[in-house]
Amino acid sequence: MRATLIYGAGDVRVEDVPDPVLREPTDAVVRVLCSCICGSDLWPYKSMPVAESMPVAERGQRIGHEFLGVVEDVGSDVSGLHAGDVVVAPFVWADNTCDFCAEGLQTSCRHGGQWGAPGVDGGQGEAVRVPQAQGTLVKLPVGEDSALLPSLLTLSDVFPTGHHCALRAGVGPRTTVTVIGDGAVGLCAVLAAKRLGAERILLMGRHKDRTDLGRSFGATDVVAERGDEGVEKVRELTAGDGTHAVLECVGTRQAIEMSMGVVRNGGAVSRVGAPQYPEVPMDFAVFMRNVTLTGGVAPARAYIEELLPDVLDGTVEPGRVFDRTIDLGEVPDGYRAMNDREALKVLIRS
Amino acid sequence: MRATLIYGAGDVRVEDVPDPVLREPTDAVVRVLCSCICGSDLWPYKSMPVAESMPVAERGQRIGHEFLGVVEDVGSDVSGLHAGDVVVAPFVWADNTCDFCAEGLQTSCRHGGQWGAPGVDGGQGEAVRVPQAQGTLVKLPVGEDSALLPSLLTLSDVFPTGHHCALRAGVGPRTTVTVIGDGAVGLCAVLAAKRLGAERILLMGRHKDRTDLGRSFGATDVVAERGDEGVEKVRELTAGDGTHAVLECVGTRQAIEMSMGVVRNGGAVSRVGAPQYPEVPMDFAVFMRNVTLTGGVAPARAYIEELLPDVLDGTVEPGRVFDRTIDLGEVPDGYRAMNDREALKVLIRS
Repeated sequence: MRATLIYGAGDVRVEDVPDPVLREPTDAVVRVLCSCICGSDLWPYKSMPVAESMPVAERGQRIGHEFLGVVEDVGSDVSGLHAGDVVVAPFVWADNTCDFCAEGLQTSCRHGGQWGAPGVDGGQGEAVRVPQAQGTLVKLPVGEDSALLPSLLTLSDVFPTGHHCALRAGVGPRTTVTVIGDGAVGLCAVLAAKRLGAERILLMGRHKDRTDLGRSFGATDVVAERGDEGVEKVRELTAGDGTHAVLECVGTRQAIEMSMGVVRNGGAVSRVGAPQYPEVPMDFAVFMRNVTLTGGVAPARAYIEELLPDVLDGTVEPGRVFDRTIDLGEVPDGYRAMNDREALKVLIRS
Repeated sequence: MRATLIYGAGDVRVEDVPDPVLREPTDAVVRVLCSCICGSDLWPYKSMPVAESMPVAERGQRIGHEFLGVVEDVGSDVSGLHAGDVVVAPFVWADNTCDFCAEGLQTSCRHGGQWGAPGVDGGQGEAVRVPQAQGTLVKLPVGEDSALLPSLLTLSDVFPTGHHCALRAGVGPRTTVTVIGDGAVGLCAVLAAKRLGAERILLMGRHKDRTDLGRSFGATDVVAERGDEGVEKVRELTAGDGTHAVLECVGTRQAIEMSMGVVRNGGAVSRVGAPQYPEVPMDFAVFMRNVTLTGGVAPARAYIEELLPDVLDGTVEPGRVFDRTIDLGEVPDGYRAMNDREALKVLIRS
């Protein structure tokens, strides 16, 4: 079959790889219907060092952690899943039974792991061997040709990530929210905050097509300014106080600094942008303001059942974040387009 | 009257100052029965620069933010308080009616402030003018000679601070807890965690008399090691996982680093030690573990009514943190004794 490998910064290739087969009785094999490129895939795309000490043939690493497909085969220990089932996979695999999973933290599963790790397939390919399939995969009540597939695919990562961000920040009715970042995660955070009843949602972003989608997802205000100017603008819009919740969906030092600037005393900054910084400015002044920093990598698996009905009945349409659809062979150009900000989020039809 | 002033590092004096009088209709005047020295008073005692550009007579600043006393006079806008009432004051004053106060964040009160600020008395003196008296003071159903006064005095700061720390960290039944620091705040955090039902409480501290008191407050394990060794020890005691909650009651960079090392994935570090560091190490690895950093200066006022019954009926005895009682004139030596770790926490009888 064909799958996507990354060899170093800027070097993504679609190549022939062995077809996946069951290795463990807890495995399943899934034929991929659609997958996508994540903002976090762009970090290695921007900066992954080329492993020059290795032979070229061994340098490539599988990539992609969001996919939806059809079960082709299941191991003897897998129950509840059958060939032909349409399923979505969360962006880490997990047994969904250990103590961490029981607490809703499948990203720390004692028997889980990441797609694309050594010996594990990535999601951007024609098929995937799914470890811990019974715990990992969620069956979807739709056919292979459902028009809902793009929105259902977002259950793999980007929509639950926005939901995790909002939930951890305590968003609910009467909450005021600032969302930092108008990428797909930021827009899904807007959608999640709206779904949780947020009273007011300020979206910080400067790409009008994206912030327009943010408005249709529920943003009540858009702030194009950044840095100190952005903080000042949010303060102006909130009578000087800032907002109860800040959803940090970028991951840069500037974004986390802005977060501390716009959060209301006693409020929470929730971060889901993979941090590109080692330290967070949380000094005595922040301490005196009782600001909480929360969030982290989203345990998407914990939220899929909760979010699924709203996707199925069209209450939310997170699939609108996909503004480009490509074939598997076009994946290298998909990375380029997202990296150049030509595309917001790219959907791959396998 | 006499009151305590700080002139610079190591220079604390008890001097004659004007008697307090009502200035605003929202004021009260309280004759102090007892006050105490806080670990946070030691920060200026260690490092406050001498204001050499000012005349000596103007350099002194009032100090002390924990006191309990008897109402002597109330302004015309104060209801519910009368001369002769025994009252405790939380360590910031607040109107207790603004939106922040209504949320339980009296430390951010829109009309509040700190004891010892310019124009405001400190608590380590014979009497105090209390701004926003109706919102600030809590009447205590005891006489001036009650044996409970030391425990009731802790409601001013140190016990609610421990409670805030534990509450923000989400401590409850089945929670495992690490408390970092065996000072009075750390010991009160142990007591608060126990009161909230924590299943297991690991106290990190190396002063046996203090950790012994910690054990009697509810600590199940004591870890004397610090730094990496301390982290390793906590991990050993928790099957490698760390604890759900970490109560950071020191405020140093080492303490916050240890906190990140001993917290369980998905858990919370709650800090009430005034941070002596500008940044917190919360990098990609911490993000992947979904660790929350919370806490901050404790809104003691929010918790007094809740904690009071348990103090009155002897369920908890936080006053046991006082291991030395002095007269007001001995305050300079009280600072020295706490700074030299001769005393855990010093109670001052006015």
